[in-house]
Amino acid sequence: MMRVTIKDIAKESGYSVTTVSLVLNNKADHIPVKTRDIVLSVAKELNYRPNQLAVSMVTKRTNTIGLIVSDIRNLFFSTLAKGVEEECRKNGWNLILCNTNDSHERDLDYIQVLADKQVDGILFCMSIETTKIKAEKSIDLIRRNRIPFILMDRYLETISCSSITVDHERGGYLATEYLIKLGHNRIGCITGPTNLTDSVKRLDGYKAALKSAQIIYDSSIVREGDYSTESGYKHAKELIEKGVSAIFAFNDLSAFGVYNRAKKMKINIPNDLSIVGYDDVFFSEILDVPLSTIHQPIYEMGVEGAKQLINFAKNGQDDDKHIVFLPNLVIRDSATSPNTDLSAK
Amino acid sequence: MMRVTIKDIAKESGYSVTTVSLVLNNKADHIPVKTRDIVLSVAKELNYRPNQLAVSMVTKRTNTIGLIVSDIRNLFFSTLAKGVEEECRKNGWNLILCNTNDSHERDLDYIQVLADKQVDGILFCMSIETTKIKAEKSIDLIRRNRIPFILMDRYLETISCSSITVDHERGGYLATEYLIKLGHNRIGCITGPTNLTDSVKRLDGYKAALKSAQIIYDSSIVREGDYSTESGYKHAKELIEKGVSAIFAFNDLSAFGVYNRAKKMKINIPNDLSIVGYDDVFFSEILDVPLSTIHQPIYEMGVEGAKQLINFAKNGQDDDKHIVFLPNLVIRDSATSPNTDLSAK
Repeated sequence: MMRVTIKDIAKESGYSVTTVSLVLNNKADHIPVKTRDIVLSVAKELNYRPNQLAVSMVTKRTNTIGLIVSDIRNLFFSTLAKGVEEECRKNGWNLILCNTNDSHERDLDYIQVLADKQVDGILFCMSIETTKIKAEKSIDLIRRNRIPFILMDRYLETISCSSITVDHERGGYLATEYLIKLGHNRIGCITGPTNLTDSVKRLDGYKAALKSAQIIYDSSIVREGDYSTESGYKHAKELIEKGVSAIFAFNDLSAFGVYNRAKKMKINIPNDLSIVGYDDVFFSEILDVPLSTIHQPIYEMGVEGAKQLINFAKNGQDDDKHIVFLPNLVIRDSATSPNTDLSAK
Repeated sequence: MMRVTIKDIAKESGYSVTTVSLVLNNKADHIPVKTRDIVLSVAKELNYRPNQLAVSMVTKRTNTIGLIVSDIRNLFFSTLAKGVEEECRKNGWNLILCNTNDSHERDLDYIQVLADKQVDGILFCMSIETTKIKAEKSIDLIRRNRIPFILMDRYLETISCSSITVDHERGGYLATEYLIKLGHNRIGCITGPTNLTDSVKRLDGYKAALKSAQIIYDSSIVREGDYSTESGYKHAKELIEKGVSAIFAFNDLSAFGVYNRAKKMKINIPNDLSIVGYDDVFFSEILDVPLSTIHQPIYEMGVEGAKQLINFAKNGQDDDKHIVFLPNLVIRDSATSPNTDLSAK
């Protein structure tokens, strides 16, 4: 099970290894055209391909990007990966996929693996358990290996490096503003982990929208979740009991948790309870009550990430570059004006 | 932006490149221990890692697997990828992800890319548009490149090679048998593309279950879909108008299409129409009416694929190996005994 080498072509064509090598490396100036043609035709016949490892040794480039994600089964990351892969392919580059199960230790492991593989760049989605200190540790390791990189989606404001993110404050604002315009003034929140900037920003947007509408922020109806269906399910009950007429869930998965709990409590969506999610994963649309949510241009982010990183790898990464994508509100059926009978309770 | 080389260590430590090279390649028998210690400590300090390209040139192994899938956004493939990746990681191997958007041309492109990258093996999920002739072309290309490979999930019986598949005939049988036991005798089918063995096998299972129950097969209530939500939506109406009391959809996505159409027609699931799907993707569980479906051990298949392929790469692939995973029925809420008023229509 060995690849076809120059030796095989020499043997098959009857010419020397030197002759074959000169022909295949375009140095056949002094070799008869007929010889050259025979060598090339044998090479083609045997499906000879140049040794890319050897090529990479010379060019110092592997034309490979490493993508580190938390969970490829999560549609956010698989959509991102698809965008990255598509752009890589267009450029003749490849994608090595690393899956961390949201473990910081695995982030570190994979950074080293990718460095050892001599990838030309890393697109890094930090694991959910990343704190500031851990993020610094990861980034320090990438830098010590002198690999261009871009933080994707999750980042920490205190760290200076290139990033591609979504303006989550705007996303939080749009969701909350929409609910306020429908007439809600008691809007519960199920956030993501508070150590993640994306969750903090969504909450900032929520607060800003309340402020614009002169509604006082009430921390008792803001619950910290972890972006899981279970955490939506768990916190929905407490919020409903606190008399909210609407819930803004910081991702679609936790919104589904709210759906499940509402169903169990025989609370009708949207008549008794309005819900807005965040992410716009594809099944949000096909739910029994299609979910109104904030759409993130995830695929486009993946494409842009690959594009920028390939550029960095080729031309150097002198300055930090920050690219911010804008989210938008997708209105479906999960929110409506509050049921006044209930909200008067 | 260059990686740390032996030259850097020589410069930093004050020793010659030859000395450093001998130390780092474990050939330092004649070099004083003190010198060796200094070189190693400088190497560590600078985060020196051996050049894996050079190592691969010598070992002729890249410790990398290529995985070719149709659409990484499809949960089937992202779950498979997660299993493959996990097993690779355990063995210190890597995964290059290739996404074909179900195009046979891209299958061919990627096989060549992976060959050029000198991967040690390919896990190949053929694109949905693959016919027998196209499959032969793909496999011929892999073989000419002398790369060990395993066909995953989609395969063609007429081609002799290693494969890891699910016993879809058993899956089709289980779904149909379950509906028959609930009392249905007019069970519509929305299949996958008829050129795919996995769909043909599910249909064989459907037919076998009918036969066991002495129900005559009626081809007018069997429709060819393409595994999309849209095709489920489209064919559901025709089948309902033909008076079926239950539908067996050959994947969960098309089952969702049936849900949507039933909802539009104000047909209650499961009281007016029972549905069984196939795949058990995670959102099947969180639907308004959780979907009864056939579960495939996809993650486990990915793990097994990587395990076998690593074994082939290390020890050679002398004989074809066929591993078959068994599916099982997951009963939720989307099927019940037929509503006799309706079925008597």
